[in-house]
Amino acid sequence: MDELREECGVFGIWSPEKKHLAHVCAAGLTALQHRGQEAAGIAINEDRNIRYHKGPGLVSEVFPAPVLNELGEGQIGVGHVRYATTGGGSALNAQPMVVRHVKGQLALCHNGNLTNSTPLRRELELKGCIFQTTSDTEVISYIITQKRLQTPSIEKALEAAMGEIKGAYSLVLTSPTKLMACRDPLGMRPLVYGTTSDGSVVFASETCALDAVGASFVRDVKPGEIVVIDADGIRSIETHCGKAQPKLCVFEYIYFSRPDSVIEGVCVHDARVRAGHFLAESHPANADIVIGVPDSGLDAALGFAEKSGIPYGIGLIKNKYIGRTFIAPEQSLRESLVQQKMGAVPSVLKGKSVVLVDDSIVRGTTSARIVAMIRKAGAKEVHMRISSPTFLNPCYYGTDVDSTENLIAVHHSIDEICKMIGADSLGFLSVEDARRLAGSNPDNFCAACFDGKYPVAKED
Amino acid sequence: MDELREECGVFGIWSPEKKHLAHVCAAGLTALQHRGQEAAGIAINEDRNIRYHKGPGLVSEVFPAPVLNELGEGQIGVGHVRYATTGGGSALNAQPMVVRHVKGQLALCHNGNLTNSTPLRRELELKGCIFQTTSDTEVISYIITQKRLQTPSIEKALEAAMGEIKGAYSLVLTSPTKLMACRDPLGMRPLVYGTTSDGSVVFASETCALDAVGASFVRDVKPGEIVVIDADGIRSIETHCGKAQPKLCVFEYIYFSRPDSVIEGVCVHDARVRAGHFLAESHPANADIVIGVPDSGLDAALGFAEKSGIPYGIGLIKNKYIGRTFIAPEQSLRESLVQQKMGAVPSVLKGKSVVLVDDSIVRGTTSARIVAMIRKAGAKEVHMRISSPTFLNPCYYGTDVDSTENLIAVHHSIDEICKMIGADSLGFLSVEDARRLAGSNPDNFCAACFDGKYPVAKED
Amino acid sequence: MDELREECGVFGIWSPEKKHLAHVCAAGLTALQHRGQEAAGIAINEDRNIRYHKGPGLVSEVFPAPVLNELGEGQIGVGHVRYATTGGGSALNAQPMVVRHVKGQLALCHNGNLTNSTPLRRELELKGCIFQTTSDTEVISYIITQKRLQTPSIEKALEAAMGEIKGAYSLVLTSPTKLMACRDPLGMRPLVYGTTSDGSVVFASETCALDAVGASFVRDVKPGEIVVIDADGIRSIETHCGKAQPKLCVFEYIYFSRPDSVIEGVCVHDARVRAGHFLAESHPANADIVIGVPDSGLDAALGFAEKSGIPYGIGLIKNKYIGRTFIAPEQSLRESLVQQKMGAVPSVLKGKSVVLVDDSIVRGTTSARIVAMIRKAGAKEVHMRISSPTFLNPCYYGTDVDSTENLIAVHHSIDEICKMIGADSLGFLSVEDARRLAGSNPDNFCAACFDGKYPVAKED
Amino acid sequence: MDELREECGVFGIWSPEKKHLAHVCAAGLTALQHRGQEAAGIAINEDRNIRYHKGPGLVSEVFPAPVLNELGEGQIGVGHVRYATTGGGSALNAQPMVVRHVKGQLALCHNGNLTNSTPLRRELELKGCIFQTTSDTEVISYIITQKRLQTPSIEKALEAAMGEIKGAYSLVLTSPTKLMACRDPLGMRPLVYGTTSDGSVVFASETCALDAVGASFVRDVKPGEIVVIDADGIRSIETHCGKAQPKLCVFEYIYFSRPDSVIEGVCVHDARVRAGHFLAESHPANADIVIGVPDSGLDAALGFAEKSGIPYGIGLIKNKYIGRTFIAPEQSLRESLVQQKMGAVPSVLKGKSVVLVDDSIVRGTTSARIVAMIRKAGAKEVHMRISSPTFLNPCYYGTDVDSTENLIAVHHSIDEICKMIGADSLGFLSVEDARRLAGSNPDNFCAACFDGKYPVAKED
Repeated sequence: MDELREECGVFGIWSPEKKHLAHVCAAGLTALQHRGQEAAGIAINEDRNIRYHKGPGLVSEVFPAPVLNELGEGQIGVGHVRYATTGGGSALNAQPMVVRHVKGQLALCHNGNLTNSTPLRRELELKGCIFQTTSDTEVISYIITQKRLQTPSIEKALEAAMGEIKGAYSLVLTSPTKLMACRDPLGMRPLVYGTTSDGSVVFASETCALDAVGASFVRDVKPGEIVVIDADGIRSIETHCGKAQPKLCVFEYIYFSRPDSVIEGVCVHDARVRAGHFLAESHPANADIVIGVPDSGLDAALGFAEKSGIPYGIGLIKNKYIGRTFIAPEQSLRESLVQQKMGAVPSVLKGKSVVLVDDSIVRGTTSARIVAMIRKAGAKEVHMRISSPTFLNPCYYGTDVDSTENLIAVHHSIDEICKMIGADSLGFLSVEDARRLAGSNPDNFCAACFDGKYPVAKED
Repeated sequence: MDELREECGVFGIWSPEKKHLAHVCAAGLTALQHRGQEAAGIAINEDRNIRYHKGPGLVSEVFPAPVLNELGEGQIGVGHVRYATTGGGSALNAQPMVVRHVKGQLALCHNGNLTNSTPLRRELELKGCIFQTTSDTEVISYIITQKRLQTPSIEKALEAAMGEIKGAYSLVLTSPTKLMACRDPLGMRPLVYGTTSDGSVVFASETCALDAVGASFVRDVKPGEIVVIDADGIRSIETHCGKAQPKLCVFEYIYFSRPDSVIEGVCVHDARVRAGHFLAESHPANADIVIGVPDSGLDAALGFAEKSGIPYGIGLIKNKYIGRTFIAPEQSLRESLVQQKMGAVPSVLKGKSVVLVDDSIVRGTTSARIVAMIRKAGAKEVHMRISSPTFLNPCYYGTDVDSTENLIAVHHSIDEICKMIGADSLGFLSVEDARRLAGSNPDNFCAACFDGKYPVAKED
Repeated sequence: MDELREECGVFGIWSPEKKHLAHVCAAGLTALQHRGQEAAGIAINEDRNIRYHKGPGLVSEVFPAPVLNELGEGQIGVGHVRYATTGGGSALNAQPMVVRHVKGQLALCHNGNLTNSTPLRRELELKGCIFQTTSDTEVISYIITQKRLQTPSIEKALEAAMGEIKGAYSLVLTSPTKLMACRDPLGMRPLVYGTTSDGSVVFASETCALDAVGASFVRDVKPGEIVVIDADGIRSIETHCGKAQPKLCVFEYIYFSRPDSVIEGVCVHDARVRAGHFLAESHPANADIVIGVPDSGLDAALGFAEKSGIPYGIGLIKNKYIGRTFIAPEQSLRESLVQQKMGAVPSVLKGKSVVLVDDSIVRGTTSARIVAMIRKAGAKEVHMRISSPTFLNPCYYGTDVDSTENLIAVHHSIDEICKMIGADSLGFLSVEDARRLAGSNPDNFCAACFDGKYPVAKED
Repeated sequence: MDELREECGVFGIWSPEKKHLAHVCAAGLTALQHRGQEAAGIAINEDRNIRYHKGPGLVSEVFPAPVLNELGEGQIGVGHVRYATTGGGSALNAQPMVVRHVKGQLALCHNGNLTNSTPLRRELELKGCIFQTTSDTEVISYIITQKRLQTPSIEKALEAAMGEIKGAYSLVLTSPTKLMACRDPLGMRPLVYGTTSDGSVVFASETCALDAVGASFVRDVKPGEIVVIDADGIRSIETHCGKAQPKLCVFEYIYFSRPDSVIEGVCVHDARVRAGHFLAESHPANADIVIGVPDSGLDAALGFAEKSGIPYGIGLIKNKYIGRTFIAPEQSLRESLVQQKMGAVPSVLKGKSVVLVDDSIVRGTTSARIVAMIRKAGAKEVHMRISSPTFLNPCYYGTDVDSTENLIAVHHSIDEICKMIGADSLGFLSVEDARRLAGSNPDNFCAACFDGKYPVAKED
């Protein structure tokens, strides 16, 4: 599946002593690279002075060693990876957003989408504010800055700002002297923190980034919580906690997060295996082998195999060097070049009835191509199983679901989709099962893209 | 395993009509990219005139669309991917090597290493030949060119040249009017050919490249065979065939080739699964789960699980965006940044006795790091199983095995290695089992890097 | 002389029909490239929608043809070249600054420096404004935007803003429907406008940019004037005109502007020739030949030769391909590599008493090197004449004079400087003569860097 | 004039001790950059081991500091700048050409063109030689290498090779232990040598490169001479000297060489001034001012002014930042963007009768554009004077004169050309005067491009 995109990953570190934290941020962001591949940025706070660098590309491209070294030592570092839409000003939308205000500098990293950024923006413009980007993060910067004028500290300003902004946000910020992290009251996007043996505190979108920098997981930041760390130690502000039912994005388990990450106590891999279990029960198949579409369908395929008793196989090989696919000018050549991203293992598929597990169907074109490849390799039946429900609605909280007109499930029944992708049978995870993936309260999740139940309304 | 390197992948296509074959070559080479990532090149033959482009980097980097378009239409295309050693002249060692001689141009792509290039080179130098590269391919170009002066055709010249050059070589060449491919008499490196529905003929190091360009597999080029295709059709020259026992490099099955490729009738994936079977029999373990090191240990892990009855699990997640690892200036930070390439899935490993399957151990440092990561994730025992024998000898045929001084098995017993990598037990595939991976005659393989039995002597 | 830097050049064009104005802007900015080489930017206004691109480097580097094409058609284009100080955020200081406010978008290009930006910035911060750059232009954007809330049109807002901002500014702006240009009430930086045969209106820092885009010069924008052009035609707002004595930066004639530009009715070349005349009168020399340091000393050298009757010669050849000078690691080699930027013509200098004319001395090191080169080529005497007075004071209006500690004339008498640079005699233009370069009222110029008479006070 | 191109500049240095000579080579080559801007290369010989780097672009682009540092220390360095024709293999034609032969390595740098490379190439091919480039230098490499087999030393081999190769060549070479330089028996291309205070010996195409690296000029290498320097000192081989009348390319004085260079005892600037004198005598004009087209017309303009008594003026300003000209998609805009490369100084030209001096007319389009610009600036008459004769013939010795079909003088009379470029009068230097530019024997020069008298026949 390659049509869905998460908007961001955030990272932050506070060290008791000055160090070359840019290298640590780069390692942490690379572990979060699956959450956004189009821009990256790091800001280093050295003695109240914030230096930063950001640009389009992968972390490894934006941050060659000399750039990291030039960012120098500091006590606080924050970083961001982003999927940026194309167009003129996109590079300027890269984060961290670093601003100067009356109390000094502020660097913000944001994962999520506000639902009331349009009215907030309008209100700010009417006060004479100017906007240099089209990102929500600039709105948040203004709100915090204006609250700071009426509050005694930056964390109080953040607390007050959280009373105004609505929607999904996991933020990591550095003020001149403090590293802060907060999560929206519904906890729609994940955010964790950990510590290292030398006393550093680390915030990250996922635990895999803690692992990558050698930090030990402490706990998830709570929905609505602000965590602050400075020379006086670490402390929590819970004013906005516990006032609403949590609504973690269920797609974090299904697709966004890395399988080795643990969110709210549940390992992503386990949730995906459980999706396979559910599918094996709800949509069983009489087949010889279970194959996952690499990489995101593998865990659910293993779960399907476990529960169904059908052997698990490795039947598709992803080309890990695909930078782009090559498209010949001639139509005849183009048609022959369809199989560049993946190859089918003929010995595994030949003459078999195959259960093929993938994580989602958006437009259906990719699925059709893979089913055709499996058949060409000799499979006699292909039973497609999808470890998510059908996409029917737009997301207002930061997931770049394709536009509704492109969503195949909006326009076609499951039977029709089955025919369109050329499968012998097709089964999707039910929304109820999706809500049960983590094994906790099914109401604790947002599944609006599947069921249209939006926990926060979009304001225009 | 990241210390072993294959030197090359080769690709060639002949089309009955002029087309933009550079795009096809690029797609084919990308499917062979795992065989060499440091340089790439494509030559297009249009009406006896050969245009080419080559340079350092991945196929997708060396060949942006405008470069492919500029190569233009042609009836023949050849291409190459290479692992080039660092240093001044490395870019010049990129292939295809394109030369002009008395009969026109010649573009050569070579996978393998000659064993008598030193004496051949010396002999040529004594005739006044100059060398602009350090590659064997330049030697081959001279030999063919000089034979061409005494023979009526380029294929006869190639046939004569094959009488002089020794060692491992799979070649794809284009003369002004012909596409040719040949394989050394021992067939040490793989080479296959296929055809497309529009009548094109394709040569490639592996079948996965045929799949990528929509070609159907016809057969392996035979050891010692020359296949020629031009306006008069396709024909085979078998003068050098059948005079020696085949000696395919066994490491093609263990590591080099892509699992979905089929070599000499045997799917690489199947050979690796069989390695797992052998290991389960020769080095059984009392364990809860079998884990493969991604990507090259996964097939053997599945085989071990199948044969042993121990469940197969997904316990290690590779970061697919790792361009390089980030190394902080401070020692304390460096130590914390060890886990960037891979993450362990805690829920799968915690409290488990784990069989960990990888394809090889060269220096042992990577294995030690992975074992430590598995333990940190909570595994109580780690039983390491390696789907190849111990490396003890250098390869003269084109595999860049690490220098002998770095090979851990040269200096240490298996028990010592087991302790050094921190495993509870350690088992390697036996050389006998390695020779049985393909299920065919065990004598048909070269396993010199394991057993020191060199089928062709190195001449200095 | 390479230690002085002007901060900017500005350009704007309004066309009665939509066209690919980015190409025109690029040509105009290249003609202004001498005013700033470190960043360039262009914004195109198409039907109220402003697209832009900016980045570090020369115009030709920042704007390859595909980038220009992608900016597309529009009715208004504005552009900027800049000398940006090094450091983290420098790329963000590139212009045009493009902001969104309550009435739509605004793109600003600014040449000059405000003297009250610090208090204005503080005031804005106290209202909750955030700053993403360190440039004055962001302050101007805010002031205009906030005035816009209380005024019926953007030009009225600009008029009101001009009542608050102080210092040097030549601005070119585009609102959704209008192209505007204005000059500070003292006219410290130049700004002209012209028209083309197809009815376009062009603004530029210098007339050489009008020539480069085929526009005919109409007149200078007056000190304090706002010129507005939109669908209703061109009109002038003169509220801020005539309230203060003009104070054009005299260094525009001496160094900044291109010799073929005409500022306030006087050709820059003529002003420099006149500087040579003044020098020949005030600091005559008994010599055989007059040589100018290329390129900026040539005009004054010609003037000196004309007035003195000593023949003009071409004695120094500038290497036009110098990208950077090469510095060997060894001290002994370094000393030998001093003569890379320029070569002396031995036949012209050998045995001659030479008058050497340059435009300024900042640190003195460059002059010492050139005098030594002239002597090495065989000159028997070197009489240095400088077509500007001694630098003694910092500039607050946008000229990046070296820091006072580096200014040789602050610390040394003219006799001492003469010895330090190794000349036989040394003469500077007097401040009085500098004020007479244009042949107009000597009080109409700012010469603060020479005489310390600041027309507008710097506010901190 | 921008349609003529010299093919190369060569440089070499031998140092008594190992040093970072790459930096010195880069400085020397930058001084020769006017002789070729499309490729550059440097080879460093350290203890018989030659490292090298070459690539497309200016010296400053091909050799960033890290690349120079990586070339390391050595006792010998050679370098080359080149104008390379476009097309697939052009980068491979960059020099130095570094080859390995039976006696070790050889690095060659070549300025000039052989006239018998075609037959020599054919002969070599018939011996089985392969060619990887299309350059003459590869032919020379082979000839020297093959001679080396029959001679006791590399200098004897070079001496023997000079008996076979014909045409124009100034070569700088390094063998494992020796730096050598030689010039063809007619001395068609310049080559000088000098020494430094630390005992180094330097060879270069022009003296300006000696100046740039702090070397003192010793003398021109003689036509036909080989100069060898190694641990045993410097020595000369004069076997091929004095057997033919020298035939230095007269265009070295007119256009190729830098004005501050001295060739065969005559300063290039002086020769150009003399061209101006000759033009003032042969084609006088009744005018108010003499203007040179920068940069290559300035010296002759000064000469014209001196001899005619008409004042010299600076009337054209070259934009030194022109990387490329910008071309708008619309025809109407394109016409307006003609004046990007140069600006006219209106105060100098207005109402004047102008003598305009340029160094050559090839196609005539550039001249027409400049004449039009001068008229637009207000000149009432334009009398064009060209400091070279009319181009009528191709050059076989390394000057890339435009193809005959494009040479305006081949197809049109001088009167016609005068009308075509829009001048009031037009005068070219006579061939006789061109031969007298250096003040020495008129027969000592090749002027074949003007008079068709080829000193060496081209062999096909």
